[in-house]
Amino acid sequence: MTRETNLEGVNLVVAGVTGAVGQEFLRVLEERNFPIRRLALLASPRSAGKIIPFRGKEYTVETLENFDPSGYDIALFSAGGGVSKAQAPRFADAGVVVVDNSSAFRMEPDVPLVIPEVNPESVNKRKRNIIANPNCSTIIALVPLWPLHRHFGLKRVVIATYQAVSGAGARALEELRRQTERVLRGEDARPEVFPHPIAFNLFSHNSEIDDEGFNLEERKMIRETHKIFEDETIGVCATCIRVPTFRSHAEAINTEFAEPVDLEEVRFLLGKAPGVRIVDDRASNHFPMPLEASDQDDILVGRIRRDPSAPRPENALAFFVAGDQLRKGAATNAVQIAELILQERSR
Amino acid sequence: MTRETNLEGVNLVVAGVTGAVGQEFLRVLEERNFPIRRLALLASPRSAGKIIPFRGKEYTVETLENFDPSGYDIALFSAGGGVSKAQAPRFADAGVVVVDNSSAFRMEPDVPLVIPEVNPESVNKRKRNIIANPNCSTIIALVPLWPLHRHFGLKRVVIATYQAVSGAGARALEELRRQTERVLRGEDARPEVFPHPIAFNLFSHNSEIDDEGFNLEERKMIRETHKIFEDETIGVCATCIRVPTFRSHAEAINTEFAEPVDLEEVRFLLGKAPGVRIVDDRASNHFPMPLEASDQDDILVGRIRRDPSAPRPENALAFFVAGDQLRKGAATNAVQIAELILQERSR
Repeated sequence: MTRETNLEGVNLVVAGVTGAVGQEFLRVLEERNFPIRRLALLASPRSAGKIIPFRGKEYTVETLENFDPSGYDIALFSAGGGVSKAQAPRFADAGVVVVDNSSAFRMEPDVPLVIPEVNPESVNKRKRNIIANPNCSTIIALVPLWPLHRHFGLKRVVIATYQAVSGAGARALEELRRQTERVLRGEDARPEVFPHPIAFNLFSHNSEIDDEGFNLEERKMIRETHKIFEDETIGVCATCIRVPTFRSHAEAINTEFAEPVDLEEVRFLLGKAPGVRIVDDRASNHFPMPLEASDQDDILVGRIRRDPSAPRPENALAFFVAGDQLRKGAATNAVQIAELILQERSR
Repeated sequence: MTRETNLEGVNLVVAGVTGAVGQEFLRVLEERNFPIRRLALLASPRSAGKIIPFRGKEYTVETLENFDPSGYDIALFSAGGGVSKAQAPRFADAGVVVVDNSSAFRMEPDVPLVIPEVNPESVNKRKRNIIANPNCSTIIALVPLWPLHRHFGLKRVVIATYQAVSGAGARALEELRRQTERVLRGEDARPEVFPHPIAFNLFSHNSEIDDEGFNLEERKMIRETHKIFEDETIGVCATCIRVPTFRSHAEAINTEFAEPVDLEEVRFLLGKAPGVRIVDDRASNHFPMPLEASDQDDILVGRIRRDPSAPRPENALAFFVAGDQLRKGAATNAVQIAELILQERSR
C-alpha cells in the first residue's frame, strides 16, 4: 500500500491555494515533479469555484471548511494561522499529514519544525500528523547557519532583516506596486494592507510588540532557531524590517562561535552546503541581492568576513544573505517536507 | 573685526552647490538664518553660469577651480573627495575655514571630525583651516549613541544600514525614480549610476572592498567612530546596504556597554539629547521610518530594547534609527559646524 502510494503518487491537498504562497506551492510541485494521484485545491468560501490549471488539467477551488479530507495523504496548508488552528487538526485526525506554513503549531512540542537541509529526521518525530514549516526569515538565516553551527558551535547571532512585502501576502505585493505608481505620480501613498507607506519607505515589521520590546516576527526567529537547532543557549537577537522589495528577504547576520573560525573553511562548508550558493565577488562588488535570489531556491550568501567588533574576533563572522521568501522561505521548504514523507512511505 | 563679521554675517562659499547636498546647504542656511554678507556659489565648469536663487537674490554659479577665495571666511564643500583634495587646501591657505563634506580629510590627525552634538570643542583643534564633516551613516548612528556612550561606556556596536540613494547624489535620486517607472512598465532596470538595479532591490554598498572584506563605507563608520569618540578600543562592525528609499538612512544598531543599562535611563538620556527624537510607540507600532525622518534634522530613535543575545544582556541594547542623509547626515551638520566657527569669532 505505501509503496503503491509512492509509485502512483499521493492524494494531495493544497489549502490556501489562491494566496501568494499557495500559488507558489503549485509552481514548486510542478517543477519538482511531485508525484500526485489526486489533487484538491482549497481556499476560503470567497475563492471557491475559481478554476486553477495544474499540469494541463483544470481544478475547481473548493471551500476548505467543508472539505472532507478522508482518503488524502498530505495537505500543504498556507491559509493563515487562524484557519490552520481551526482546520489542520481535522485533517490530521483523518490521517492526513499536514505540512503547515503558518505559525499556529510551530512551537508545539509534539509538532516537528523542519528545514530539510537542517533537521530532516525530525519529520519522523511527529505525534499528531502535523509538521510545521518555519518562519521565512528563520529558514533563510538557518540554512547557511547550520553547517557553520555544526562545525564551529554557534553561541550568538544578531540579525537585521530586509524583508520583502511578499511575506504579507498577495495583497501586499499588489500594494507595493500600486502605491509606488501613485507616489511616482505625486499622489498620496494611501496604505491599506500595511499600516505605513511602503513605497520608497521601510518600517519595523508590523507585528505585535511584546513586553521585552520584540515584535512577533523577531520572537519567532529567536524561538524557532532554538527549536530547530535544539539549543536554547544560543543567543539570538533580531531586528525585522519591511523594505520595498517584492519577494526575496535579505539579512545582515553577525555571529559568534565556540570555536575559532577559519574563513577558508567557512567558504568550503558553505560551498558544499545543500540549499546554499555563495555569491561573494569582492572584485566586481557582486553580493546577494533580492532580485537575484528570487524565483529560485538557493539561499545566496556573501560579504563573508570576520567580525572585528567581537570580544574574540577569531571566533566571529559577519555575512549577508538573500533568499526567496515565497519559495525556500515557504513553498519549497514545505514541498521538501512532503518529499521527506514520501521517502518515509517508500521505505 | 571678528565681532563685526558676526553681526554683519560672514563671506561664505558654497562649493558643489548644484549637487544634492549643495542644494540642501542653501535650504539649511536659509532656514537657520545663517548670517551671510557675501555669498559665492561654486561648482564644476559644467554648471558654471547657472542661475541659482537664494534669499530673493539671484546668484551665478562660478567655476570652483578658477575661484579666488581671498576675503572669504568659511567655505562649505560638497564637491566630491577628489575635488576637495585638490581645492580645499587652496582655500584653507587663503584663510578660509573649509567645512568639507567629503571623506578626503576626515582621518587626517590635524583635521577635526565634528558632530556638533558630540564633539563641538574639536572645532578649535584645527591646525590647517579644514574641518571634516563625518560620513552620513556615522553621524546618524553617533548622535544617539553619544549620550549612551558617555553614560554607560560603549564597548561594542554592530550596525546594519538601510541607506537611501541620496548618498550617491542627485543623479542617484533621479535613477531610483526613473528606473522604478521603467520596471513598473515592465521594462529593463538599466542601471547607470549604481552597478545593480535599485528599483525594488537592495545591494551591498558599492564602494571598494578591502582585504578584510569591509567596503569603504563600513570602514568609514569604523574609523570615524573611533576618531569622534576618541576611543579606538570600541568594537565596531557595520554592514552597509543600499535600499530603494530616497533621502533618509535607517540603521539597526546592537550595542554593548561597560555598565549595566537601565532602559528608563536610556529613554531619559535620549529624550533630552540634542538632535534626537524618540519615536517608539509600541502600542501603535510606530517607529523610525525614512519617510518621517526626511526633510527635518532630528535622528529618530525607536525599537529601544535589551539585546538578550549578548553575554551580559543587562549591559546590551538594541535600537533602530532613521535620519535625513542630506540634512543631519550632511548639510545641516556642516552648517552647524559653520555656526560653531561663528560663535568662536564672536567670543
